[in-house]
Amino acid sequence: MNTKEKPIGIFDSGIGGLTVLREILEVLPNESLIYLGDTARVPYGTRGKEVIERFALELTGFLVKKDVKFLVVACNTISATCLVEVEKNSPVQVLGVINPAVKEAVKVSREGRIGVIGTRATVGSGVYEKEIKKLNPQAKVVSQACPLFVPLAEEGLVGSEATKIIAQDYLSSLSPAEIDTLILGCTHYPALRDTIQGVVGSSVKLIDSAKPTALELKNTLAQNDLLNDGANVKSEFYVTDAPERVSQVAVDFLGQVLPGSLKKIDL
Amino acid sequence: MNTKEKPIGIFDSGIGGLTVLREILEVLPNESLIYLGDTARVPYGTRGKEVIERFALELTGFLVKKDVKFLVVACNTISATCLVEVEKNSPVQVLGVINPAVKEAVKVSREGRIGVIGTRATVGSGVYEKEIKKLNPQAKVVSQACPLFVPLAEEGLVGSEATKIIAQDYLSSLSPAEIDTLILGCTHYPALRDTIQGVVGSSVKLIDSAKPTALELKNTLAQNDLLNDGANVKSEFYVTDAPERVSQVAVDFLGQVLPGSLKKIDL
Repeated sequence: MNTKEKPIGIFDSGIGGLTVLREILEVLPNESLIYLGDTARVPYGTRGKEVIERFALELTGFLVKKDVKFLVVACNTISATCLVEVEKNSPVQVLGVINPAVKEAVKVSREGRIGVIGTRATVGSGVYEKEIKKLNPQAKVVSQACPLFVPLAEEGLVGSEATKIIAQDYLSSLSPAEIDTLILGCTHYPALRDTIQGVVGSSVKLIDSAKPTALELKNTLAQNDLLNDGANVKSEFYVTDAPERVSQVAVDFLGQVLPGSLKKIDL
Repeated sequence: MNTKEKPIGIFDSGIGGLTVLREILEVLPNESLIYLGDTARVPYGTRGKEVIERFALELTGFLVKKDVKFLVVACNTISATCLVEVEKNSPVQVLGVINPAVKEAVKVSREGRIGVIGTRATVGSGVYEKEIKKLNPQAKVVSQACPLFVPLAEEGLVGSEATKIIAQDYLSSLSPAEIDTLILGCTHYPALRDTIQGVVGSSVKLIDSAKPTALELKNTLAQNDLLNDGANVKSEFYVTDAPERVSQVAVDFLGQVLPGSLKKIDL
């Protein structure tokens, strides 16, 4: 197969990464995509680095065997804790979701006061702060783990009173006096965007990874002469567990029915 | 080793089963215990039966190799979905947490109107209703999945306003007019006992599995002449992932420091 026609591999701890895939579909409609979500072991964000890395390398191995031309780590927790290890185990280029969002945040932040919210593993890694300061050494970064946001989003409690109270509790320190920009450092958090915006105030700019990642993917493919022109486009979706509920939530995150076959696999 | 001196194996999808182990320690202080919690893949209650069974049999295999004299499935989700499969794969007797709680609930229920709350997998299995009706064919059973209770309990949001609102949402149909007894069908739920009692009303009796399971274990060991007299007592704890947070929450669930060594293993 012509290298350009090979699929792009996209993986996540679960189905949150479909919010990234959604933007990739929009920006790169002429590409074949293979998505892999580890729904049997989700969530990763509460786990230790060693376990996250072991799981992430199993996901990497599966997609490498599918002969992808490029890998997208559509999971902030994996990107934050073990992107380097994924790169070491991949024969093709790898793009995580951290750097695209960091570049965007540094670009739009008026005063370099940037908040970051994510899973416990993501925030604990300190990677966002490190990457932001590479681009803007004067930046002030405040981070906050929001571990209940993933289950609240997956249970559809978007906009509920309970979610507002929990968001206020997590985010009360991230007022407009403290930050001018907030990175939603988890693929699930865009689902709670309205609630988060309500708590931090309308003057704070919210940045999520999906669109910047899709755009950076497009640029990188173009630079490496890897863009497909729509030849033999066919997408595939793999999950490690698929109870009925997962398919429903997947459709919510993707905003449409899956544009390809869905298969359950064991890793 | 004398069979009586062999340890009792106790396993759970995570650390919620420590609430059961806590009662076993109290009722059977002369026994050696081996606890295994699959903290790398917790929670199970959101997953499909096939995946839960595969994971549960891996846990079973680990404890069988440890030469236990008896197995306790200290997890409602595993007990509800695949107790039979665990039994088939165990050379020793197996006790789950469903039947002990069902017997207790049927005994204390004044009018046989029994509510059951649990994970989505537990409630979806329909096992509680089936077992209750075996003991009281006239019983009326109402079930409700409460998927957010596990993360809320693990995040320590016990008694918080958000937890109350979510509990009201889940439990509003389980009023004293509907039920006189409520089974807390998940090892995490006793942590939310006060909130749950507040919502369903003080006249509803709450039953959790821990004490009835410990007592039934004691009876069964006695009947099979398997009780140890305290000889060579030594307990061991195994988890598949152990970030710092897990150890903290474990101590909360157990109400004391772990009375034995803690080791991280891969399954």
